Amino acid sequence: MQLLNQTITSIEGQSETSRQQAKDRLDQLIMPHWALGRLMDLAVDIAGISGSIRPNVKRKTIVVMAGDHGIVDAGISLYPQELTVEMVRGFVNGVAGINVLARQAGADVKVVDMGVAGDLSDLAINGDIIDRKIAAGTNNFATGEAMSRAQAIRALEAGISVAHDLAGTTDVFGTGDMGIGNTSPSSAIIATFCQLPVADTVGRGTGLDDAQLANKIKVLEKALELNNPDPTDPIDVLSKVGGYEIAGIAGLILGAAILKKPVIVDGIISTAGALLAARLAPKCTEYMIAAHRSVEKGQIAALADMGKEPLLDLQFRLGEGTGAAVAMNLVEGAVAILTEMATFSEATVSMEK
Amino acid sequence: MQLLNQTITSIEGQSETSRQQAKDRLDQLIMPHWALGRLMDLAVDIAGISGSIRPNVKRKTIVVMAGDHGIVDAGISLYPQELTVEMVRGFVNGVAGINVLARQAGADVKVVDMGVAGDLSDLAINGDIIDRKIAAGTNNFATGEAMSRAQAIRALEAGISVAHDLAGTTDVFGTGDMGIGNTSPSSAIIATFCQLPVADTVGRGTGLDDAQLANKIKVLEKALELNNPDPTDPIDVLSKVGGYEIAGIAGLILGAAILKKPVIVDGIISTAGALLAARLAPKCTEYMIAAHRSVEKGQIAALADMGKEPLLDLQFRLGEGTGAAVAMNLVEGAVAILTEMATFSEATVSMEK
Repeated sequence: MQLLNQTITSIEGQSETSRQQAKDRLDQLIMPHWALGRLMDLAVDIAGISGSIRPNVKRKTIVVMAGDHGIVDAGISLYPQELTVEMVRGFVNGVAGINVLARQAGADVKVVDMGVAGDLSDLAINGDIIDRKIAAGTNNFATGEAMSRAQAIRALEAGISVAHDLAGTTDVFGTGDMGIGNTSPSSAIIATFCQLPVADTVGRGTGLDDAQLANKIKVLEKALELNNPDPTDPIDVLSKVGGYEIAGIAGLILGAAILKKPVIVDGIISTAGALLAARLAPKCTEYMIAAHRSVEKGQIAALADMGKEPLLDLQFRLGEGTGAAVAMNLVEGAVAILTEMATFSEATVSMEK
Repeated sequence: MQLLNQTITSIEGQSETSRQQAKDRLDQLIMPHWALGRLMDLAVDIAGISGSIRPNVKRKTIVVMAGDHGIVDAGISLYPQELTVEMVRGFVNGVAGINVLARQAGADVKVVDMGVAGDLSDLAINGDIIDRKIAAGTNNFATGEAMSRAQAIRALEAGISVAHDLAGTTDVFGTGDMGIGNTSPSSAIIATFCQLPVADTVGRGTGLDDAQLANKIKVLEKALELNNPDPTDPIDVLSKVGGYEIAGIAGLILGAAILKKPVIVDGIISTAGALLAARLAPKCTEYMIAAHRSVEKGQIAALADMGKEPLLDLQFRLGEGTGAAVAMNLVEGAVAILTEMATFSEATVSMEK
């Protein structure tokens, strides 16, 4: 509990001085006023986050938090739970969507076992994954709480510790997730914090049809009624209807905020984690960059709650950190505008020599 | 006229075989169906364009077509015409927006003098720019035609020839533009081809206020009434209300189509050129990738006319090819999905060994 409390109470907002310095420079660049729009807004944010108008953004890490979910027993996913383990092995082999898009962005991929319901010890021993397993999957929160309060805190602290462990080799974090069934806890978390009907935060996940979607909504409505999570107590929400990888993502974001590094938030699962982090430490939203608009509508609600506008809308619904990876190119572009473009006066000098 | 006619009559559509082969592979990748949305659509397009499911997209070139506009005499721009020359020198010095974003995308920038009203011969002699100057700026089309029919054809053919000259070092083209005042001919071209009131295709350009915008609309309404361009005759439209860099962009796109290479279309000026190319050879739209939604509303109208949905919406209004440069990262990502991700059966094999 100490690491979590210390982190939450120590997170400060962005540097207003660096934001202003960045704005002043961007206003003078050789183009019409603010003609590169959102990339310039992003450049101001990165300056504010890092406290520098020459921020480093070259070393990028996508952290894929993995965990399983007892609620798959309620038939809320098309895929079997075993696929979580298989996909983690796919990530280690470098053949999954996140590997491909991270490579294209020049980012490393680190996979963390937060709570996979299968044996990954061979990968952990080899250092192919980071082992922070809290339990072999959550309990089915359709029939009781997903995890204990102590487990919830340990999972959050594990995420924070991962951020610290990777800080020496990371300028920009990206969040990712893997866990069959994990849109369900994400929708439940978002419905609780945003006080929305669960039907407004639930989507088709990996491809449910209308009847399967109706079942998913019914399962989650009953689960929320049964557990009755307290929206003013983030740990209560996490323990009752959350997931280990979602806690890991929230912890990673809190860690990024304390380290004053930008963290690019992926789709609905990552955004549920971000919302959890925001409820624990509201100022941590200042370190988040919303990567993309997911097909899952719960994500849009959670982003709106945090006042975040996504950079991309590419109709992604994969997770893994794929949207965060694509957005990393934009972060680098934004910083390049701030640091490599000439001002009108600099350009005149260079033209005259 | 021979190069233009030959090009127009020889452009074929995408390869349906390669499109289908790409779809078949994408359907089997280790993720839920089409979970990377628009990047997968894009991968299918690139396969169809190149006729390959292992298309090359590494060598990228942004071609910045530059030209001046007599209509600046009518007070339609905030900036003086001399800035066109200065910005071309900025491009050569590598300090402008397009240089920065092209570098970030790993793309070359080639600047073409299509019709700049200033002396760039020192840069042309050094090979720093490509000299295809048709004239020192267009005539003011508020008082007569912008250029002769012969000049219009020569400008289009110049653009086609640039595509051929760069083909040996280019897998993916991007279009860009520089020319003070060039949103005015772009809006006039789009209004003519789309048969829209000019007020529906005009924007604030580099930052006009309400009174200046009203003046720009009035100037263009009168200019269109005076010139009365024939929307069924693209050469007539270009010669009466066009621009040399817009012709160059149209030619480049026609050249890309004949070479079966993707061409990423930037903002309103590039999109006006694309619409001109589409009217000359409708199948060339199959080679275009719409980079981004510009702040200029005429661009949206022209994209809709061609059935194109932009990939990005970053509130850009700079031109130069900046939107195309950012979209190049997405093209590479799309192809990486097609060529580097494993199928479910491939992944199983690799997991079992």
